[in-house]
Amino acid sequence: MTANQSSLERLADVLPPTAAADADGELTIGGCRVSDLAAEFGTPLHIYDEASLRHQMRALVDGLHRRWPNSEAVFASKSAPILAIYAIAASEGMGIDVAGPGELELALAAGVSPELIHLHGNAKTDAELARAIEVGVGVIIVDNEAELDRLERLVPRGRRQKLLFRVMPGVDAKTHANMNTGGNDSKFGLPISVVSELIQHLAGHDRLEVAGVHVHIGSQILSVEPFASAVEALKPLGGLAVYDLGGGLGIAHHEGEQAPSVDDYLDTLIGAAERYLPTDARILIEPGRSTVARSGVTAYRTVVTKETGRTFVAVDGGMADFVEVALTGQRFSALVANRATAVPNSRVQLVGRQCESGDLLIDQAELPNPRIDDVIVIPATGAYTYTMTNNYNGAARPAVVFVKDGEARLAVRRETTDDLLRLHQPALDHDWATSAVPAATM
Amino acid sequence: MTANQSSLERLADVLPPTAAADADGELTIGGCRVSDLAAEFGTPLHIYDEASLRHQMRALVDGLHRRWPNSEAVFASKSAPILAIYAIAASEGMGIDVAGPGELELALAAGVSPELIHLHGNAKTDAELARAIEVGVGVIIVDNEAELDRLERLVPRGRRQKLLFRVMPGVDAKTHANMNTGGNDSKFGLPISVVSELIQHLAGHDRLEVAGVHVHIGSQILSVEPFASAVEALKPLGGLAVYDLGGGLGIAHHEGEQAPSVDDYLDTLIGAAERYLPTDARILIEPGRSTVARSGVTAYRTVVTKETGRTFVAVDGGMADFVEVALTGQRFSALVANRATAVPNSRVQLVGRQCESGDLLIDQAELPNPRIDDVIVIPATGAYTYTMTNNYNGAARPAVVFVKDGEARLAVRRETTDDLLRLHQPALDHDWATSAVPAATM
Repeated sequence: MTANQSSLERLADVLPPTAAADADGELTIGGCRVSDLAAEFGTPLHIYDEASLRHQMRALVDGLHRRWPNSEAVFASKSAPILAIYAIAASEGMGIDVAGPGELELALAAGVSPELIHLHGNAKTDAELARAIEVGVGVIIVDNEAELDRLERLVPRGRRQKLLFRVMPGVDAKTHANMNTGGNDSKFGLPISVVSELIQHLAGHDRLEVAGVHVHIGSQILSVEPFASAVEALKPLGGLAVYDLGGGLGIAHHEGEQAPSVDDYLDTLIGAAERYLPTDARILIEPGRSTVARSGVTAYRTVVTKETGRTFVAVDGGMADFVEVALTGQRFSALVANRATAVPNSRVQLVGRQCESGDLLIDQAELPNPRIDDVIVIPATGAYTYTMTNNYNGAARPAVVFVKDGEARLAVRRETTDDLLRLHQPALDHDWATSAVPAATM
Repeated sequence: MTANQSSLERLADVLPPTAAADADGELTIGGCRVSDLAAEFGTPLHIYDEASLRHQMRALVDGLHRRWPNSEAVFASKSAPILAIYAIAASEGMGIDVAGPGELELALAAGVSPELIHLHGNAKTDAELARAIEVGVGVIIVDNEAELDRLERLVPRGRRQKLLFRVMPGVDAKTHANMNTGGNDSKFGLPISVVSELIQHLAGHDRLEVAGVHVHIGSQILSVEPFASAVEALKPLGGLAVYDLGGGLGIAHHEGEQAPSVDDYLDTLIGAAERYLPTDARILIEPGRSTVARSGVTAYRTVVTKETGRTFVAVDGGMADFVEVALTGQRFSALVANRATAVPNSRVQLVGRQCESGDLLIDQAELPNPRIDDVIVIPATGAYTYTMTNNYNGAARPAVVFVKDGEARLAVRRETTDDLLRLHQPALDHDWATSAVPAATM
């Protein structure tokens, strides 16, 4: 442990930049006391700091424009499919990536202009392509030839649909295998030679306008070199109008983790673009995790502490609201919101409440002697957390609040029992107990 | 590949026992043609074969009673939290395990008698314990001393609440680390010595009745020896009234996987009980996966086939409805429902539609040349599939149908866009676009 440093000091680089302590040593984010938010909105609770979120969006948008004026930063909304974030991203000048009908409808419900929407996906159905064309999405990123056949059928006469082709760059992103999308084994995209032929074949098409290509090599990438390699891989395609260079920039999730800055990332990416791409091309980037992760934290309440050889601290959430840990092994840090200025003096197994041993949130978390009813905060959970929230053990999906200038605003409400039962309603019309076997009681 | 055997023949041991082919070579389950179900109810679709499900429940209940009459088989509902299955399990004479408020409400909504309900969980809150006591659940399995303090406060005078203590047996279940709950590092339960003291301490308590102990060593366990070891570990506790020996019996998920039969499992488990436990004790088992997994299959529709060095077949579901593969690495097999009697002649990457490389459903799946619009069936998905269903990429959670004697009945309806947006309603009351930054279009 780092001697004499408080949790707040130790986690300064992973908490939202507005994180501070008040006179009582309580954690505040966006001017709101986190333990008050936990009391008002319940736990588990996702808290997004609106100022930090907008600041990061501006850093990405402005940093890109400054280096390459003919450009656009597009928010990869799969990282945080929350209606308020769609609206905020659009208001900060970002385009919006969607990958599937649900994300498209969330973007539209948030008031995003359809021409700002980019439709992704490796298995787009007729129905979702038809809906995207109907509402007028700006760009469709074509993954494969079957999709191109569908577009030929579905785009009506008199319309021109802008397309990009997703290419397989053959670049190893050096990240978790589940998040490496750029290699030759990837399910995404087509080889560059095939894309090259398709672009030639579609030249002059009356309804399908191939504007350029898209490449994406993976997620949570912690070195900048692979991004340059991906740009270099596009060189053989010759001069196109648009190069969508994807996302994938990693962030620091836990104390001590090092991630490239937005400036380092853009210096390398745009440096490669200057070397390998036409100077008059339009460049797109698609940051997801790096846009939202650090502005979000999750607050839990401690339900149990116990000593069984090791010290276990169990909170009121787990794999149901935070499957990312079990899925990827990503390490996180934590602090006690109601003792943010305390110095951590214990190492505990911070575990969730779902009935699975894999529901370990943090192995050997460093905390100041957690007690029952403490509010535990895990920073840097703003990406890929709400995305995969589920009802394991009948858990209600958490609420999401936004904080700003000392005010908190509910953006997603907590699920209720009624919500949980709603989809099961058809079963209530039938008597399932048709067996004569009597039930036993203990 | 096994020469000249059809998909149906090769997967006979993992499909529900009613699986067959009709005169057109189409897969039928419970007398229903699967491609008809896919057309009627849409895909992805979870299909449960009611006869297979009831048959397996009876095998467990009867097999246990035959070997140890003073006994009860309790369905671990976390494996398939589906209202219809709660009702069916109770009608087949099973008790019902719940672990959390949502599962409790599902059980009650299904009409399960509260006294048949067993409440589990390593982090039960005041609120859920109060609710369980209010409705009168039969048994509460106490994980830790903080929970005991809560029960002391919450169980009213004049009531006696039956309890079991969860013990840490110190037994390695030899399964995936995420599913091993019996070791000394487990977050579940208390050491046997501590439980022994608590039982003595609570003797004669006016409201808390400690009936015995519970032990559970893990999930998807494919050898029977660890179950005997767990029973032996309980011997030092002396003579108690109730021994809940947990669940964990594994099943065959893919072609060629070997799992113990129910008879082998019960022979070993009850053999150990005869050696180590009092002859007049009541014995409980808690099968989840082994109760439901084989009676359920998932049907998908093929959206894309492509060759990019490897052959990819992409379906209309993935990690959103089936995160189990990415989470545990469990292997599954597949067949083409509309060509069930065809001999597999290709190896393909069967992938999902979520935007993540980890969304690989089956590596090198052996299938008969899949084509767009084929109905792909993955057998043995009846457990831990619906459990963790989520909205990744805005995917709608699938419908669940039950088939029996040629009839299909909807048990859980498919999510709609309205369902997806419902929780985000609070965000619609606010104008999030407070920034003056103009949005850019491509």
